[in-house]
Amino acid sequence: MNFTIVARDGAARAGRLTTTHGVVDTPIFMPVGTHGTVKALAPDDLAAAGAPIVLANTYHLFLRPGPDVIRALGGLHRFMGWDRVILTDSGGFQVWSLAKLRKITEAGVEFRSPVDGSTHFLSPEVAVAVQQALGSDIIHPLDECLAYPATREVTERSLALTLQWAARSKAAHAGSAAGGQALFGIVQGGTDEELRRRAAAATIEVGFDGYAIGGMAVGEPKEAMYDLTELVTGALPSDRPRYLMGVGKPDDLVRSVARGVDMFDCVLPTRNARNGQCFTADGPLTLKQARFATDGAPLEAECRCYACRGFSRAYLRHLFMSGELLAYRLLSLHNVTFFLWLMREMRAAILEGAFGPFQARFLSRYAVSSPEVSRD
Amino acid sequence: MNFTIVARDGAARAGRLTTTHGVVDTPIFMPVGTHGTVKALAPDDLAAAGAPIVLANTYHLFLRPGPDVIRALGGLHRFMGWDRVILTDSGGFQVWSLAKLRKITEAGVEFRSPVDGSTHFLSPEVAVAVQQALGSDIIHPLDECLAYPATREVTERSLALTLQWAARSKAAHAGSAAGGQALFGIVQGGTDEELRRRAAAATIEVGFDGYAIGGMAVGEPKEAMYDLTELVTGALPSDRPRYLMGVGKPDDLVRSVARGVDMFDCVLPTRNARNGQCFTADGPLTLKQARFATDGAPLEAECRCYACRGFSRAYLRHLFMSGELLAYRLLSLHNVTFFLWLMREMRAAILEGAFGPFQARFLSRYAVSSPEVSRD
Repeated sequence: MNFTIVARDGAARAGRLTTTHGVVDTPIFMPVGTHGTVKALAPDDLAAAGAPIVLANTYHLFLRPGPDVIRALGGLHRFMGWDRVILTDSGGFQVWSLAKLRKITEAGVEFRSPVDGSTHFLSPEVAVAVQQALGSDIIHPLDECLAYPATREVTERSLALTLQWAARSKAAHAGSAAGGQALFGIVQGGTDEELRRRAAAATIEVGFDGYAIGGMAVGEPKEAMYDLTELVTGALPSDRPRYLMGVGKPDDLVRSVARGVDMFDCVLPTRNARNGQCFTADGPLTLKQARFATDGAPLEAECRCYACRGFSRAYLRHLFMSGELLAYRLLSLHNVTFFLWLMREMRAAILEGAFGPFQARFLSRYAVSSPEVSRD
Repeated sequence: MNFTIVARDGAARAGRLTTTHGVVDTPIFMPVGTHGTVKALAPDDLAAAGAPIVLANTYHLFLRPGPDVIRALGGLHRFMGWDRVILTDSGGFQVWSLAKLRKITEAGVEFRSPVDGSTHFLSPEVAVAVQQALGSDIIHPLDECLAYPATREVTERSLALTLQWAARSKAAHAGSAAGGQALFGIVQGGTDEELRRRAAAATIEVGFDGYAIGGMAVGEPKEAMYDLTELVTGALPSDRPRYLMGVGKPDDLVRSVARGVDMFDCVLPTRNARNGQCFTADGPLTLKQARFATDGAPLEAECRCYACRGFSRAYLRHLFMSGELLAYRLLSLHNVTFFLWLMREMRAAILEGAFGPFQARFLSRYAVSSPEVSRD
């Protein structure tokens, strides 16, 4: 993997990530393909939306269908029919948020599968091996995810474990035939500024191909998220990509790019689509509102996605109200297209040295606040 | 609408139906677009599957979003983004199978909407007016659908009502600016051969652009269905299209084309897709079976649909077992593609004067019996 900065505008960066599965221009948003599929969308939809990279969840694929099945079928790219870039998380976040009966030791974490109740063990070494079986282009070390809020003592203990696991992950990755896989470190540290600084320094000390900022968008105030993001990006090496995990709303993306973030992922565009919410440059639309029942206009006049070229708000609302599956596909397609359009607009503004005015213009037009961020 | 017979082979016919929304080569299968969408498929999927015509349900669209909304938005073609041919049924079948608290008089039928409990009235005149508002290319008169089994007395009384309604529908249709809409008659008559003969004669007497055979595939033995189909097609004028409503399985389609049927509709390919069943020339596959968990082959090697070109049975099974929406789209796309492929194969065999050998070859290879037919 190779990363180069193409242009800077204040703290905002336009970059280019080159991998064996193609080039990713940054800043970029990665649609989330939890079970090896971005919900309701096919690979050709994602390509049409302009996605060069998707995220897949190691935890979910570890449990079903399992890394051995995916390796035997030629790896995750071939399994899910996606020939562009794949980033996998380590499974840490989902073990903490979804698994049952966790037992955490220094060795790793034992948990029970919500799919079939079977018991599994994930260690830093297993997480690397699983991601190698998947064959994703960018992988992550197992980390511990803190609940918010957490005391300083709990945060310190958790950070120590995450850092120890980071070093073991790097060793496991280095000791194997990694086949061009990049390994990103994850900066944890909760909401304590000093611990975030310490986390960043210690993670850089281990040394990674890129740096993820974890443990954000978990319930902390928005301002704290922006401040911590700025603090961490300021501490990270400028020549490596920076990935803010699980973020976020369109306005969060803009504010975080302004603070030096290059990569994002979030279930928001697809999850909210399944709840009938569409993102537009004028703010989100709640399609079930009666005012759309006879609205012959497309979701967003400027959008070139299939949903906006072929169908009216009235029809999309009708599909949604009737529980028709096509609603989920078309609304997901539009939302993902919108998020990727926004990233391209930001990149263009950075290249022109006009990110400040772009940010002001976008936020003023977007205006309406969108609903809560959450992750699968 | 214009219909010409291009070739005959025994009772089987290859025809061409020309409408203002394009040409339909027969025999043809019409995917069912209940709520103005073929479940899980977009218009571009249907076009890719080679569908020149779809069916939409008057009953469902009458209740939601209502004919006035659809007319105001430019008609059903524009509403659902489908510029090819649309056939609508009269709503009769669904009033009998889905509506609550029906009250039937000679005037029409009053029923309560399962959507919101509101009361509605459908008469032959209203059914024609609704279908004119939708702007479908081929419309149908309101008919009474018998439960199976029914006594001869009940069948006779029901047939008399259907025939009276047929005449009123024709008058309503003739008295309006029909704008090129074709009106098909529906031959009812239950399972009594003499009543079916009488129904055919009386419906022909009223005079329609084509003839549907109704009240089949409602639970009667398979042999009775084939015999009655043969009896009715033998009584119908040879220069008009014949449409066997709600049928059927791939082997039913072949056996009915052999008996002179030109058009079919059924929810089978889409409904069974949502239950994980895929149709192939070697018989149906039940994808949840464990044997497919590591099967790297496509659903059907010969099929050119997107599902078969890009994905393995193992991946499609994984999507289905994970409840992923993409499973429903891909399996529906394959099944509809298979049904339309089968129709084209039959047409080619008729044109070559080789329908008999084709039928024998297909049925012998298809072999495995498929599950029960049902309708939305």
